[in-house]
Amino acid sequence: MSDICRVALDAMGGDNAPGEVVKGAVEATKKENDIHVVLVGKEAAIQAELDKYDYSKEQIEVVDAADVIETGEPPVMAVRRKKESSLVKAMYLVKEGKADAFVSAGSSGAILVGGQTIVGRIKGVERPPMAPLIPTATGVSLLVDSGGNVDARPSFLVQWAKMGSIYMENILGIKNPRVAIVNIGLEEEKGNALVKETYPLLKECKDINFIGSIEARNIPKGDADVIVCDAFVGNVILKLYEGTASTLIKKIKGAMMSSFKTKIGALLIKKSLKEELKTLDATEYGGAPLIGLNGLVVKVHGNATSKEIGNALIQCVKFKKQKINEKITASLNVEE
Amino acid sequence: MSDICRVALDAMGGDNAPGEVVKGAVEATKKENDIHVVLVGKEAAIQAELDKYDYSKEQIEVVDAADVIETGEPPVMAVRRKKESSLVKAMYLVKEGKADAFVSAGSSGAILVGGQTIVGRIKGVERPPMAPLIPTATGVSLLVDSGGNVDARPSFLVQWAKMGSIYMENILGIKNPRVAIVNIGLEEEKGNALVKETYPLLKECKDINFIGSIEARNIPKGDADVIVCDAFVGNVILKLYEGTASTLIKKIKGAMMSSFKTKIGALLIKKSLKEELKTLDATEYGGAPLIGLNGLVVKVHGNATSKEIGNALIQCVKFKKQKINEKITASLNVEE
Repeated sequence: MSDICRVALDAMGGDNAPGEVVKGAVEATKKENDIHVVLVGKEAAIQAELDKYDYSKEQIEVVDAADVIETGEPPVMAVRRKKESSLVKAMYLVKEGKADAFVSAGSSGAILVGGQTIVGRIKGVERPPMAPLIPTATGVSLLVDSGGNVDARPSFLVQWAKMGSIYMENILGIKNPRVAIVNIGLEEEKGNALVKETYPLLKECKDINFIGSIEARNIPKGDADVIVCDAFVGNVILKLYEGTASTLIKKIKGAMMSSFKTKIGALLIKKSLKEELKTLDATEYGGAPLIGLNGLVVKVHGNATSKEIGNALIQCVKFKKQKINEKITASLNVEE
Repeated sequence: MSDICRVALDAMGGDNAPGEVVKGAVEATKKENDIHVVLVGKEAAIQAELDKYDYSKEQIEVVDAADVIETGEPPVMAVRRKKESSLVKAMYLVKEGKADAFVSAGSSGAILVGGQTIVGRIKGVERPPMAPLIPTATGVSLLVDSGGNVDARPSFLVQWAKMGSIYMENILGIKNPRVAIVNIGLEEEKGNALVKETYPLLKECKDINFIGSIEARNIPKGDADVIVCDAFVGNVILKLYEGTASTLIKKIKGAMMSSFKTKIGALLIKKSLKEELKTLDATEYGGAPLIGLNGLVVKVHGNATSKEIGNALIQCVKFKKQKINEKITASLNVEE
């Protein structure tokens, strides 16, 4: 097996496609030798963007796809019907073994559906979760699931805990990652039905470092590396995180711009503040992987810039080199 | 019926009891004539605190209670066994009609259990929710439930929407309050099983102003006045809100203190920043009511100061004057 990671990149996905997507591909290939990017989408539009750069023709190729799946479309229908869309064609490249990974800033719903129906699950994986990295005061934590599994079963969460641990250990280099379940208190008897059933299963699980419950207030502190919950709760966490931070930062900006005096003050602290808040910027880490599929599928923010796309592409190389999927298969088999 | 609101105050509840609790009672009676506070707890300790102030003996009385329920105790057991505790004795005053309302900064669990088993539900109320006010960019929103109903049924959420609307309209003075259900997207077909079942019921409900789903990212913006969800999700929202804000503020303080230059900058913006962030301070609104009981039960933060206790007491007066419980009864009967 070659060490080159082939990534099928949905060139038409996201608010800034194809411009930022193509730029991200060019940037990634400049930084990383072991990557080959297949840009899938409207060939002429992609080529026009590529012509703006001095890019490596050995590392970047274009595959034409006439159609595009829009963000608003019902995902199941869109994936089934739009066979000529960039998203579907790029996913087929992974299914057929022509690519190792898929990256898109397009419709989350279509990526979730396509990931399961086209790329397909690793044998033994019940429900592949979407696992974004969320920034904390001390680093990042992996939030599994914040994808489609809103009414989850305990066995799903146990698999997510295992797969999340493998991901954090091998991709982020965190030894023996701390796994916690989102709960409304620290005592073992707390929780809703799902958490109460899942808690003892996680406790018994020998191949993870389960530290118990985590209350939502301690998530931003970085008290766990892998945070498991059903996707409804995961979605609430992810979006509230974003919303609270943005409201608070608006308030702070308002305070800084309120008078001549505060404006001078703002000038003096601006650089240091920017630096400090950068540590809370998730774009550094390159998108949310959909874990447990036959190939890596990565969802990038809809408004991703070239930097985020590039980071997502480079993350794929690590995923392949670290043989994440082989490790997941091994970990699930242990339990069978 | 007299216009005086009699409040049974658990003088021993919370981290700062009885000092801040007694002080809060004194402050509230200075501000509000139509209140009578019954301080329940260890008489000698309470009297020693009272003696520090020049207080109205007509508005404040003391009822002795020898025992205290600690925060860590299993709530059901504690409420059942500790008949002589300040919390249980104070709740009995409400049950027996000797007080209109109950306020405590003590164990949430014990307040929830005691509220249901001692004070009792209004006829027709399935599950009384705990409904804290959360600060937003534009005001406050009522979050129902963030109490004990973690595995809720659709019919509970419909009642919470109605009771929450009555509360916001009459206590906060918000005309025709906007009701939304927490969801992972705006489309009607989104959600987990609970949300999908509840959504059409809320839509049909004629006596509330249902505006549809709210994504967690829009909660801090203040996009709804009454936010309904099961208590597991509510607890996650409440605590993540707190946690994200506190982590972010720590980062900002760090940036401000990082050099001589930034410290000068911090001095210049400090006052304006404090003012701006004050609008996000929930303590102004006096605790979380447990709605739907035969009498008002209010849970105040464990680390509440006299100001928060005082605000909670004053809120009780409004609750009685506005005849909230009569309005709840009327609203539920309409549906029967």
